[in-house]
Amino acid sequence: MRPSGRKLSDLRTVSIETGVMKHAEGSCLIKMGETHVLCSATIEDKPPPFLKNTGQGWVTAEYGMLPRATNSRTRREAAAGKQSGRTQEIQRLIGRALRAGVDRNALGERQIVIDCDVIQADGGTRCASITGGWVALRLAVNKLMAAGTIVSDPILDHVSAISCGVYAGQPVLDLDYLEDSAAGTDGNFVMTGAGRLIEVQMSAEGAAFSQEELLHLLDLARTGNAALVAAQKAALGV
Amino acid sequence: MRPSGRKLSDLRTVSIETGVMKHAEGSCLIKMGETHVLCSATIEDKPPPFLKNTGQGWVTAEYGMLPRATNSRTRREAAAGKQSGRTQEIQRLIGRALRAGVDRNALGERQIVIDCDVIQADGGTRCASITGGWVALRLAVNKLMAAGTIVSDPILDHVSAISCGVYAGQPVLDLDYLEDSAAGTDGNFVMTGAGRLIEVQMSAEGAAFSQEELLHLLDLARTGNAALVAAQKAALGV
Amino acid sequence: MRPSGRKLSDLRTVSIETGVMKHAEGSCLIKMGETHVLCSATIEDKPPPFLKNTGQGWVTAEYGMLPRATNSRTRREAAAGKQSGRTQEIQRLIGRALRAGVDRNALGERQIVIDCDVIQADGGTRCASITGGWVALRLAVNKLMAAGTIVSDPILDHVSAISCGVYAGQPVLDLDYLEDSAAGTDGNFVMTGAGRLIEVQMSAEGAAFSQEELLHLLDLARTGNAALVAAQKAALGV
Amino acid sequence: MRPSGRKLSDLRTVSIETGVMKHAEGSCLIKMGETHVLCSATIEDKPPPFLKNTGQGWVTAEYGMLPRATNSRTRREAAAGKQSGRTQEIQRLIGRALRAGVDRNALGERQIVIDCDVIQADGGTRCASITGGWVALRLAVNKLMAAGTIVSDPILDHVSAISCGVYAGQPVLDLDYLEDSAAGTDGNFVMTGAGRLIEVQMSAEGAAFSQEELLHLLDLARTGNAALVAAQKAALGV
Amino acid sequence: MRPSGRKLSDLRTVSIETGVMKHAEGSCLIKMGETHVLCSATIEDKPPPFLKNTGQGWVTAEYGMLPRATNSRTRREAAAGKQSGRTQEIQRLIGRALRAGVDRNALGERQIVIDCDVIQADGGTRCASITGGWVALRLAVNKLMAAGTIVSDPILDHVSAISCGVYAGQPVLDLDYLEDSAAGTDGNFVMTGAGRLIEVQMSAEGAAFSQEELLHLLDLARTGNAALVAAQKAALGV
Amino acid sequence: MRPSGRKLSDLRTVSIETGVMKHAEGSCLIKMGETHVLCSATIEDKPPPFLKNTGQGWVTAEYGMLPRATNSRTRREAAAGKQSGRTQEIQRLIGRALRAGVDRNALGERQIVIDCDVIQADGGTRCASITGGWVALRLAVNKLMAAGTIVSDPILDHVSAISCGVYAGQPVLDLDYLEDSAAGTDGNFVMTGAGRLIEVQMSAEGAAFSQEELLHLLDLARTGNAALVAAQKAALGV
Repeated sequence: MRPSGRKLSDLRTVSIETGVMKHAEGSCLIKMGETHVLCSATIEDKPPPFLKNTGQGWVTAEYGMLPRATNSRTRREAAAGKQSGRTQEIQRLIGRALRAGVDRNALGERQIVIDCDVIQADGGTRCASITGGWVALRLAVNKLMAAGTIVSDPILDHVSAISCGVYAGQPVLDLDYLEDSAAGTDGNFVMTGAGRLIEVQMSAEGAAFSQEELLHLLDLARTGNAALVAAQKAALGV
Repeated sequence: MRPSGRKLSDLRTVSIETGVMKHAEGSCLIKMGETHVLCSATIEDKPPPFLKNTGQGWVTAEYGMLPRATNSRTRREAAAGKQSGRTQEIQRLIGRALRAGVDRNALGERQIVIDCDVIQADGGTRCASITGGWVALRLAVNKLMAAGTIVSDPILDHVSAISCGVYAGQPVLDLDYLEDSAAGTDGNFVMTGAGRLIEVQMSAEGAAFSQEELLHLLDLARTGNAALVAAQKAALGV
Repeated sequence: MRPSGRKLSDLRTVSIETGVMKHAEGSCLIKMGETHVLCSATIEDKPPPFLKNTGQGWVTAEYGMLPRATNSRTRREAAAGKQSGRTQEIQRLIGRALRAGVDRNALGERQIVIDCDVIQADGGTRCASITGGWVALRLAVNKLMAAGTIVSDPILDHVSAISCGVYAGQPVLDLDYLEDSAAGTDGNFVMTGAGRLIEVQMSAEGAAFSQEELLHLLDLARTGNAALVAAQKAALGV
Repeated sequence: MRPSGRKLSDLRTVSIETGVMKHAEGSCLIKMGETHVLCSATIEDKPPPFLKNTGQGWVTAEYGMLPRATNSRTRREAAAGKQSGRTQEIQRLIGRALRAGVDRNALGERQIVIDCDVIQADGGTRCASITGGWVALRLAVNKLMAAGTIVSDPILDHVSAISCGVYAGQPVLDLDYLEDSAAGTDGNFVMTGAGRLIEVQMSAEGAAFSQEELLHLLDLARTGNAALVAAQKAALGV
Repeated sequence: MRPSGRKLSDLRTVSIETGVMKHAEGSCLIKMGETHVLCSATIEDKPPPFLKNTGQGWVTAEYGMLPRATNSRTRREAAAGKQSGRTQEIQRLIGRALRAGVDRNALGERQIVIDCDVIQADGGTRCASITGGWVALRLAVNKLMAAGTIVSDPILDHVSAISCGVYAGQPVLDLDYLEDSAAGTDGNFVMTGAGRLIEVQMSAEGAAFSQEELLHLLDLARTGNAALVAAQKAALGV
Repeated sequence: MRPSGRKLSDLRTVSIETGVMKHAEGSCLIKMGETHVLCSATIEDKPPPFLKNTGQGWVTAEYGMLPRATNSRTRREAAAGKQSGRTQEIQRLIGRALRAGVDRNALGERQIVIDCDVIQADGGTRCASITGGWVALRLAVNKLMAAGTIVSDPILDHVSAISCGVYAGQPVLDLDYLEDSAAGTDGNFVMTGAGRLIEVQMSAEGAAFSQEELLHLLDLARTGNAALVAAQKAALGV
């Protein structure tokens, strides 16, 4: 029934390759089927100004998309002279999600910038960015700990994200672009490795939805996120 | 326990005054306690370009805040030369929420622009904007129907929104600024008059949250939105 | 003869309500007939950089207009990405006018920012902004003096402003939008409580004008400004 | 008493050289002492969009200043990414002043753009721009008439402008930079060849001023503008 | 002597992988050692406005760099709100170079946009963009010809580019970042498959250089470009 | 054969008038036939931030063009809100070229800004800017040396620039606009007084070119630059 032939609760093939950007303190290329996102982590010695002298650090994210990551070419934001509302909304979500998995006191007065650049888009780029961004973050923190710059691990748990939606009347996991375009209700679910919730964002694209539908999608998301955490662990060799 | 002395499931005093902007096709001033938002609706004869010749209309929203709506002055976005990511995220949410309550075929090839300008801010401005924006939209559509421009009512149901959150360990309804700043988990819940869900946005500000907490806040939101729908009806005299 | 039925030297109904914005150090809502402007004053501890270590303070102003303050919707300047030339010209005038009524040495090294936001426009918004802006300024300075932060009153006199013009061949006071659109010559006159001149700006919209016309409008303006000063006093209860 | 040794009612040496820009339809270099402004007129076949199908034309102006026209270097506006409020205010004044001397029906559906670029600044650049801009406009209109494109002369009269102010307690004509920086009250006076008024802009830089002072400066301006009109005629050889 | 151990006339390892972006009409990932650039070609049905009704087409290019493509993170241009002068200069060069190898009449009234995005930078990104951009262009044109949209091949010859410079007193081919930073004179040489010149850009970074040095570098470039053309052919399987 | 009647190796009439801007530390008006550029030098006490505490100085350049310097009016970059890619490319070239002729250690920790503003354009504006910009730089440095601020002359040699191209099949020197528009291959050649090369930029506008053509144009450029250096010396009276 799904355009890809997947079962309702099937993720797309997930692959996470680490160490793909030689200059970054942490990096990975995450592929969720045909959605490919390059994630890198940059460690900055100073926190943002509003955290000066608080002992706390910060994690922030920026998101971009190559012009031809999409089916028809999207105008380059640098040429347009500004980031779209969609871009800003996504990068705010990624930053918020990753910060929820970090003890900012343990991180200390520094900032880690996660760049998520979509090389190819087929739906679910913000979720892939969170899942891959966490791997880049983990690698950068590992480097800080290996160097003794940080003593106590500031990372509280895994963070991953997956989309779910109602496609052709059925709740499905991990929508690709074709499904996403046609979905009634859909949502993004950010969770911890322990299965707790960090962010739930559900929207009615057509008709409003019920609490039962919300719970059904949440159940699917739980399965999907568990598989993503396993993929993160495999990629990190832990 | 709440700074305002309200009970856990108390809304702030709600007031919706209609017809406050003489030039607009629909307008109201909504007050949720000390949060005051001016909402206006503008009818445009043409839909946005991507809907030309589709027979469908569009509802969109813009959001702004007077510089001294806030406790310390916020830089004027027009002077800064761009809308912040927060502003764009909010106005996208308002537009999406209101569109979910409209039959865009019945609206026909025209656009209604909802402007929500925060005159005074004390938490919950995006929810007040949705609830008040819907009233302005309803009034503008009434005008189109009274003039016979539209025959069949494109408005499917009421749309309202309320925030809930966990404050001092307790789930509370309709957070004001003091509560919002200190809340652990909080969320915004957009619902229809019939109690169905349009948008659910929950974020862990500190620790991740459980499904039970989500459901608890959802219950509170249901009560709050029912009261807001009643206030919309009273303001419209229906 | 006037569209509103007013006599040539009639002001519109003036109302000034103070204390309308809970966060501001001074605020008022001024109504000149259907022209409504929200004015707020913000006290900043530091003067602008060019006055550092001079012992002098500064008063500046910013001006904005809600998109639907006007008959047809005006594009939001924050969305357009810049303030129009008209906006900049008006806010420069407001700042200059208010500074002319202030002893900047007595004010000391701080800045007061006056925000004038037009809620509804029906002609004369820049004059209403000056008259109302002065009330907000007066209230903020009162607060500084009550706190003992400032000892000697830096406000030298009232400042108010009114427009006059030649409409249908007759000099009239306080043009509304209909008159303003059709006026030949018109001008804005900023004066002190003592009746001295702070700013005179007269433009020929059609044919050039004579010195006699200038003097005639100036006489009208004198009457109008005297009434505005009385309204300022009444609003402040002095 | 004046830094330059001029008498109170002395203009600086005025020179207007025409035909200085080979590509422009009209051009001149106007020098008011050490203030030098290059003015050019460009004829565009189409009026601005808001005049389409009205039979009327438009005259507009743009103003700029070379970075090192001033004593200390001014940041290039093209590099800063926007025109300052001062620039916009000045170019709006130039356009308004020149339009007041034109019959826009006789001009027909076309636009003339006057560019005024300050090569060297020593006070009074906006007035010099108006006086020189009018010469460029006159030359461009002459070209249209010589070609038979326009039959009836749309130029109603000369337009010129001069500043006056109170310097060291005395009313003086045509302030240079040193005087302008120290002046109490000053103003710009735009007049027709017949001595009628197009624009009067007076500001109290320090203390407010009286009607008598206004009239005194206006008298001085009348003398100055008469001399400028003579210089325009001489430059045009009429 | 070279940091990489390469001989003076050694290229870095070149690899060109085609078909890497599923949505693009042509794409490749070119690697020159540690410099990696993703190149895509987008076919647009319409030429730019200035070519309307001329029968001619256009090839243009845009260039970007992921923030962490570089050793220390570079600010994202979309966030900065504009493309740097360097970026604009590079993308103008790429477009000019590729157009020089195309018969724009044979291409017909359409535009091909080449996007070159640097995934990892180690010197020579503009040259790699030209060499890889040509492969993407070739693939897109192949698609147009296969579809019969274009009958006569508009591509005149291969286009490739290589940098050369004087490093440690010796002329070297294909500078990497370490060499580029320390090079005295360096240049970029764009050539055709037949060995003719399209663009020569040489700059003295330190002391001025002689005609002999220019010719020496040109000889090196000829060798390098011949090898790049071979790599293009291998990648295309021709 | 040339539109101007010049011989193949003729420069246009060159004139360099110094001291034309009273505020600048150095200035000249350079005319290459109908191409006129105003060049000024501004001495700033501080170097750019990246040179702080290095003992080195910097020379930078900005380039602009009056809107009606060109045959049809060019949009004012300050009004457009950004400098074009062409402008940025040119000003980067001017800065790079002038720096190549300066010993930045001898200059010391200060910056000299060269502004080149095209008053009238007829081809070759970037070359005229370099040649005239060097004269302005020389004059500013003379002032620093006369004041004893700098002891050892930081200027290593003259810097001048000239364009050459293939017009109607013949290599010609110093292209004017008509020739430039029709030229096949053309280039800009920046050289020192001693005849060494600082920058060579050659582009195939149509067909690719050969090494012989490059050398032929380089020979022409050598003659042209020698004449320009003579003109610089004459203007400076040395």
